[in-house]
Amino acid sequence: MATTLQKQVAFLREIDQLKNVVRQSPLLDRSRRENSAEHSWHLAMYALVLVEHAAEAVDVQRVLTMLLLHDIVEIDVGDMPIHGGTSAAHQAQLEAVAAQRLFGMLPQPQGEDMLALWHEFESARSADARFAKALDRFQPLLANIFAGGGTWTENGVSMEQVLERYGPVIREGAPSLWALCEQWVIEHFQSHPAPR
Amino acid sequence: MATTLQKQVAFLREIDQLKNVVRQSPLLDRSRRENSAEHSWHLAMYALVLVEHAAEAVDVQRVLTMLLLHDIVEIDVGDMPIHGGTSAAHQAQLEAVAAQRLFGMLPQPQGEDMLALWHEFESARSADARFAKALDRFQPLLANIFAGGGTWTENGVSMEQVLERYGPVIREGAPSLWALCEQWVIEHFQSHPAPR
Repeated sequence: MATTLQKQVAFLREIDQLKNVVRQSPLLDRSRRENSAEHSWHLAMYALVLVEHAAEAVDVQRVLTMLLLHDIVEIDVGDMPIHGGTSAAHQAQLEAVAAQRLFGMLPQPQGEDMLALWHEFESARSADARFAKALDRFQPLLANIFAGGGTWTENGVSMEQVLERYGPVIREGAPSLWALCEQWVIEHFQSHPAPR
Repeated sequence: MATTLQKQVAFLREIDQLKNVVRQSPLLDRSRRENSAEHSWHLAMYALVLVEHAAEAVDVQRVLTMLLLHDIVEIDVGDMPIHGGTSAAHQAQLEAVAAQRLFGMLPQPQGEDMLALWHEFESARSADARFAKALDRFQPLLANIFAGGGTWTENGVSMEQVLERYGPVIREGAPSLWALCEQWVIEHFQSHPAPR
């Protein structure tokens, strides 16, 4: 039987694979797309730096933990692009199975605690989760803006679609960040008009 | 004059560059070397999962924060390989200048707080820093073991050198992790003898 430490090491080895899950968002220097492991690091830094902009009081350690583990399910199911066509309900189901498998590798109650935090993030059912979700939308929006359009240009996404897909989640978790985003998005589409 | 939020965004854009700093350690599937951003994410997960193995009581949030920001200086000065020949004192000096510049981009007191935490990590002057430093040695040791030797084989590093370079730091911050490492290292060098 595997000891506590052996299970923990097996989990830490397994999640090395997140470094090979490639997202839609570009690096700011446009040299390549970012992967989900480095995205998760960057998001945790966003949380540390931007915590004062949370809509409600948040527990930083819980927010960090959610952001560090929120994408681990992509090891089994891949990254679902925000502008993609996959059914959200079907993807959510696959992700729940993946979460069960991956966090299930850990000893108890550690695995159950992480799984519960993952579900809390997914369902945005706490102030911590809503702030974490806002950052998870803010970071790729910022990347698209400062990499000159990125996935929006590639996918022919309109200003209205950007405002609609990013707006509600960012506004709810971090209203002052959304005020800045709106300004960026409007300026971006003024200087990069969508093809007709 | 830049607002608080503008300074924070400028910092978060700047540190995107950590995704382009390539380390010596391989991914576990040996497909490429890992970069410092994804390494930092993985280390933060190590801290969350392995905190019960810390030598002394630690504050998880402070450990996570240290690990998330400890390598940001590499944006200016690159990664110093543990088996490399660079003068450690010279590198430490360059890193201190880099920390001043990078954390100096943030509003105060946020920048000063992060700079202080970075110095605390570097000098290993608290239980939190000693545990964080132990993980920063444990993760690449694990990567080398499970990627079949990695940088050790490439650089002709002996078992004695591995025990000497990783041992004291891991043992001090997380003795039970070192017990496991010693066993791995001995088994590794038994099945991969160093060239004479």
